Amino acid sequence: MVDGNGTLIKRIFENAPFVRSLGIELVSFGTGWCETSLKVTSVLKQQHGLVHAGVLMTLADHSCGGAAATTASDEQDVITVETKVAFLRPAPVSVLLCRAQVLRAGRRLVFTEAEVFTEEKIVVSKVSSTLAFVALKSS
Amino acid sequence: MVDGNGTLIKRIFENAPFVRSLGIELVSFGTGWCETSLKVTSVLKQQHGLVHAGVLMTLADHSCGGAAATTASDEQDVITVETKVAFLRPAPVSVLLCRAQVLRAGRRLVFTEAEVFTEEKIVVSKVSSTLAFVALKSS
Amino acid sequence: MVDGNGTLIKRIFENAPFVRSLGIELVSFGTGWCETSLKVTSVLKQQHGLVHAGVLMTLADHSCGGAAATTASDEQDVITVETKVAFLRPAPVSVLLCRAQVLRAGRRLVFTEAEVFTEEKIVVSKVSSTLAFVALKSS
Amino acid sequence: MVDGNGTLIKRIFENAPFVRSLGIELVSFGTGWCETSLKVTSVLKQQHGLVHAGVLMTLADHSCGGAAATTASDEQDVITVETKVAFLRPAPVSVLLCRAQVLRAGRRLVFTEAEVFTEEKIVVSKVSSTLAFVALKSS
Repeated sequence: MVDGNGTLIKRIFENAPFVRSLGIELVSFGTGWCETSLKVTSVLKQQHGLVHAGVLMTLADHSCGGAAATTASDEQDVITVETKVAFLRPAPVSVLLCRAQVLRAGRRLVFTEAEVFTEEKIVVSKVSSTLAFVALKSS
Repeated sequence: MVDGNGTLIKRIFENAPFVRSLGIELVSFGTGWCETSLKVTSVLKQQHGLVHAGVLMTLADHSCGGAAATTASDEQDVITVETKVAFLRPAPVSVLLCRAQVLRAGRRLVFTEAEVFTEEKIVVSKVSSTLAFVALKSS
Repeated sequence: MVDGNGTLIKRIFENAPFVRSLGIELVSFGTGWCETSLKVTSVLKQQHGLVHAGVLMTLADHSCGGAAATTASDEQDVITVETKVAFLRPAPVSVLLCRAQVLRAGRRLVFTEAEVFTEEKIVVSKVSSTLAFVALKSS
Repeated sequence: MVDGNGTLIKRIFENAPFVRSLGIELVSFGTGWCETSLKVTSVLKQQHGLVHAGVLMTLADHSCGGAAATTASDEQDVITVETKVAFLRPAPVSVLLCRAQVLRAGRRLVFTEAEVFTEEKIVVSKVSSTLAFVALKSS
């Protein structure tokens, strides 16, 4: 059964210390997608005063994981297999939004993509990511 | 002239707040390569108690930038165009090392790759990244 | 001036022997996009009787080049820097269509993406590709 | 049991019409790697008289599949999940060689990489590819 009430995706966002430390928030989700946001603070910058690529990748990766999680069964969890990120434009230090969606959920693999964009809908990064379903560990 | 004394790579590591906040250190470098390390702390974990993919991507991206910087001229800086990361194995919460090297430095683009590995030389991630030379801004 | 009348994209499809030998056709295009098709023949198969991944990649790569070409100036040509292809589903031996579009055309680099799909609109591959503008050689 | 005598890899190269039509040859292999070659003919060119990116991707993809196949059990076959190719340099119309190797073979996924290079050992493309083990179909 697909995780209709979002237990897994909520847990993924609540229980990840690194994601919480950056300030990444789960905004909304449905089967096959999720939206997230991040209010960029000064510590998330790189040497030119822009948002560090690692921050953009973290936001996108976790959002892709969230989207994939909405297609998992009650006994499954998701892990990232690989990801590719294209940095279309420099990302300003402001609020960043991300929408991730599932392109195809197979039996063992989930293909996803994501966009990171500003509040003015300027896309700064485009992401293509493959995840795998794994057995959920009770914790 | 290639940046033989490493002014650019040193500045890239010193002046990036996000990289410093994670604890990423520049260990050594030469023309076309650099090595970095990160002592993983508890806040860098994801929901399963492993190192977050975003941490691995940040470490690799910044190291690729460092390697590329060693091939820049005195008037150039580097920015990441795109990156792909394969997550070969879960990364344990311990010391992680990264070696990045330039595959080819052209006139405008730099192709790099990187490995993230444990102190026991177990490779956890393999990275392929393209960067671009841009004009250095005085700051 | 952007190549409004499609001189470059037409030449890219007419003058590429490999693309012609596979049977790839330019169907339509506008500024920032193009659509192509390929009637898959028996020789384009791999060992399981499906379309070879290399055929899908060739179709997508050339289409991304076409889309990028529509944003080139009269003095520019385009070359592929790197590409990533996700194989969402096996591709049947039938007619395949591809739509490529530019995500961002900068001064020196063009970010594109493409989908390869069947006549029933089933997406079989999703592609993310970076190209570079280079000086057009007279030939 | 790992496929020590290379039944699967040999079949992958013999039974793929597209690969045979290009002239790609299996040169040698062992557990976790294979080497291939391609004598580039005129039909494999793109519009600038260089080797088409699709040819390089086909050579690399099939070689990664071959390397992965050497780590499959007798009941397994391999399929490509995704691949990323960096085009470091233009590839001349001559003999091209490819070496593909397994970075990690898991229970369900195989991470590979490959280099395409000239007889003078100039690397023209670097490839990172993920494959999956699937059940072998009798044919």
